[in-house]
Amino acid sequence: MRAVDVIRKKRDGQPLDRDEVRAFVEGAATGSWKDYQLTALLMAIWIRGMSAEETAWLTRAMADSGTCLDLRDLPGPAIDKHSTGGVGDKTSLILAPLAAACGVYVPMMSGRGLGHTGGTLDKLESIPGFRVGLSLDEFRKVLRSTGLAMIGQTADVAPADKKLYALRDVTSTVESIPLITASILSKKLAEGATGLVMDVKSGRGAFMKDEASARKLAASIVANGNANGLQTEALLTAMESPLGNAVGNSLEVIECIETLKGRGPADLEELSVDLAARMVRLGGLAGTIAQARAKVRAALTSGAGLEKFRECIERQGGNPKVCDDYAVFPVAPHTTSLKADRDGHITGMDAESVGIASMVLGAGRESADQWIDPTVGIVLKKKPRDSVVAGEELAEIHYRDSARLADAIERLRKSITIGDMMPRSTPLIIDVIGAAKG
Amino acid sequence: MRAVDVIRKKRDGQPLDRDEVRAFVEGAATGSWKDYQLTALLMAIWIRGMSAEETAWLTRAMADSGTCLDLRDLPGPAIDKHSTGGVGDKTSLILAPLAAACGVYVPMMSGRGLGHTGGTLDKLESIPGFRVGLSLDEFRKVLRSTGLAMIGQTADVAPADKKLYALRDVTSTVESIPLITASILSKKLAEGATGLVMDVKSGRGAFMKDEASARKLAASIVANGNANGLQTEALLTAMESPLGNAVGNSLEVIECIETLKGRGPADLEELSVDLAARMVRLGGLAGTIAQARAKVRAALTSGAGLEKFRECIERQGGNPKVCDDYAVFPVAPHTTSLKADRDGHITGMDAESVGIASMVLGAGRESADQWIDPTVGIVLKKKPRDSVVAGEELAEIHYRDSARLADAIERLRKSITIGDMMPRSTPLIIDVIGAAKG
Repeated sequence: MRAVDVIRKKRDGQPLDRDEVRAFVEGAATGSWKDYQLTALLMAIWIRGMSAEETAWLTRAMADSGTCLDLRDLPGPAIDKHSTGGVGDKTSLILAPLAAACGVYVPMMSGRGLGHTGGTLDKLESIPGFRVGLSLDEFRKVLRSTGLAMIGQTADVAPADKKLYALRDVTSTVESIPLITASILSKKLAEGATGLVMDVKSGRGAFMKDEASARKLAASIVANGNANGLQTEALLTAMESPLGNAVGNSLEVIECIETLKGRGPADLEELSVDLAARMVRLGGLAGTIAQARAKVRAALTSGAGLEKFRECIERQGGNPKVCDDYAVFPVAPHTTSLKADRDGHITGMDAESVGIASMVLGAGRESADQWIDPTVGIVLKKKPRDSVVAGEELAEIHYRDSARLADAIERLRKSITIGDMMPRSTPLIIDVIGAAKG
Repeated sequence: MRAVDVIRKKRDGQPLDRDEVRAFVEGAATGSWKDYQLTALLMAIWIRGMSAEETAWLTRAMADSGTCLDLRDLPGPAIDKHSTGGVGDKTSLILAPLAAACGVYVPMMSGRGLGHTGGTLDKLESIPGFRVGLSLDEFRKVLRSTGLAMIGQTADVAPADKKLYALRDVTSTVESIPLITASILSKKLAEGATGLVMDVKSGRGAFMKDEASARKLAASIVANGNANGLQTEALLTAMESPLGNAVGNSLEVIECIETLKGRGPADLEELSVDLAARMVRLGGLAGTIAQARAKVRAALTSGAGLEKFRECIERQGGNPKVCDDYAVFPVAPHTTSLKADRDGHITGMDAESVGIASMVLGAGRESADQWIDPTVGIVLKKKPRDSVVAGEELAEIHYRDSARLADAIERLRKSITIGDMMPRSTPLIIDVIGAAKG
């Protein structure tokens, strides 16, 4: 099968068959297709789209391009969670231990942050000693013994996805629902999960800025996961303002531990518990979502979730004392405060701008090869709908490099609007897609 | 300006501005854009199209990517002709000497054949000693002294076009009217012509299989040439059956010489004279097309055209004796005949199949790096609307390799249909686009 023929077919808007999709993916993984042929087809796919069937074939072929784990020998269900990414979005570190405490096995392979959104791996690496680079064999062992393991995508998992993602990033072919769907799900199929709870974020701080696109992506992921034998459901959640109060790596991990101790911000706790409960129900460990929520809440209240997190940190080489003494974390050399310049109510807080302010401080990266500073970031003292008086602290800024501070403060100040009217309350969880009733 | 931003804009169907088009072309010429970015944009252009304005900028930027000749110091008009390519399409070798004999300077840069269509350079190279690889300086000298020069595109002419064409060929992005238009015209602008007569072919043996597409291409070339200061007109001509009787390199040159002696096939003479006349009129050497035709006919009848061809061959290192003694050409070792298996009229002769049969014999190439045999090919003894009796010769086949003969004969036989009814006569010159009245 010649690359030019496959490219021509999609160029002309015709659907590809299974063998053609597979030839493309194998071409990417083996190098038998040239990069300039891969990107010509990626652009044709971006513009012409792909049917649900083509997307399902693409997903499977990308998973099959590397090692696929089989986790069916675990004594419980293997359920993962994935988020499309947001600012202050740290639920993974809370829900994975909670779900594990309820009997779910959470085989979590995550990514690094890019641009204004953070990444789970960067957060985990702020824990002294924590190794995200386990081999697949070590991953399997930690997973079996503790019920959760959190690592980066290894080189042998879905290599075609790595190749294609790198090319999409430099050819403006990222934002395509079939390509995003296949990229996310191929890695989940390869890691051996049998169920997946997606958190699809919508809003100014999310990848999908409008609810309609986020809904389409959620529907595509749910349909395609199920078509490939991965039980999938999705929450559609708001990402207009940051989730929780902390933005920045060690600051976020501290907030996760606080949440596992029952002292976290309400929005973060609510979403983490709901996502964990959906994993528990999807794994067949509760009959209804209400029962699942009760189980997860019990794991939170009893401290079982925190114990699971401590165990995971220890098994992955990290210092478990971070759970008891936050001074074990590396600390930024300086802090300062952003204060309100008037009385009123917080009427808006642009998540993307807060994320960029944090990136400017060094907590995130603009390009994939940048080093990030685990210590710096922002702790919000006020959130939307809070009332505030002039001079009151809006945020605490943890920084290292004074030269970057003014830019970060300026961005942060602009991201927060204070008005006279209390804004309308809007739901954090907008909708549930693909879930069983009950 | 970042490649990803230019790509995104076209991906989303927005027109590019002049600087963006130029950044793309310079990226191709200098290598500052990666091949995989060039092809992503080529695919977006293929699908989304380009406005007349964008196409004109693309053409000029591609011409400017290399050396541009200035031929305004010539004592007469510099007018070129270009064909989109066909089977047996050898008019260049006839019209260039005829136009030169009438006072036109013909600065012809041509290409090689690919697939079922032949190329002017391959034909010229069947003349012993003929050098198509003149430097631009030699080219200018031959042109000034003889009124015509026929060479290949040198490396310093429109290098961005070379780069982009090579990528289009392997990514199914060839058949795009703006890209074809810019590719053709950028080379004409660079070679210094001030006028161009296009022969846009339409039909089974042409690049454009249907008349509507051929018309669109002709209109695009005429508009774009004029927008870039190149006086341009186009003939829309039929390419259902081969032009003339000979298909194959030395066989075609012999037919050209015969035509310059007034003994050529009627269709080939008609088209060559008309194209040459349009060049003469475009160059201001005749007031009307009728006057221009009379001038060209005179050059044909007097033998002045043949003398120009002889002079050009000599100045470019070839053996001018070929004009008098065809035995000077290299000769294929074997010939055989294809005979009619029934009485009737020739109702069809599929030019593309005839071209492929000739390619199978070795007269053409499937890929750009193949060697071609100057001697082999097909001389048609019958053409559409000729009557034929069973056993009569349809074609003479000149071949070297017996192993390829059966396949070539089979293709040739299938390309010719004999029926009972005399088919309707159809015009060779379908339309004239962009020409002045008269």
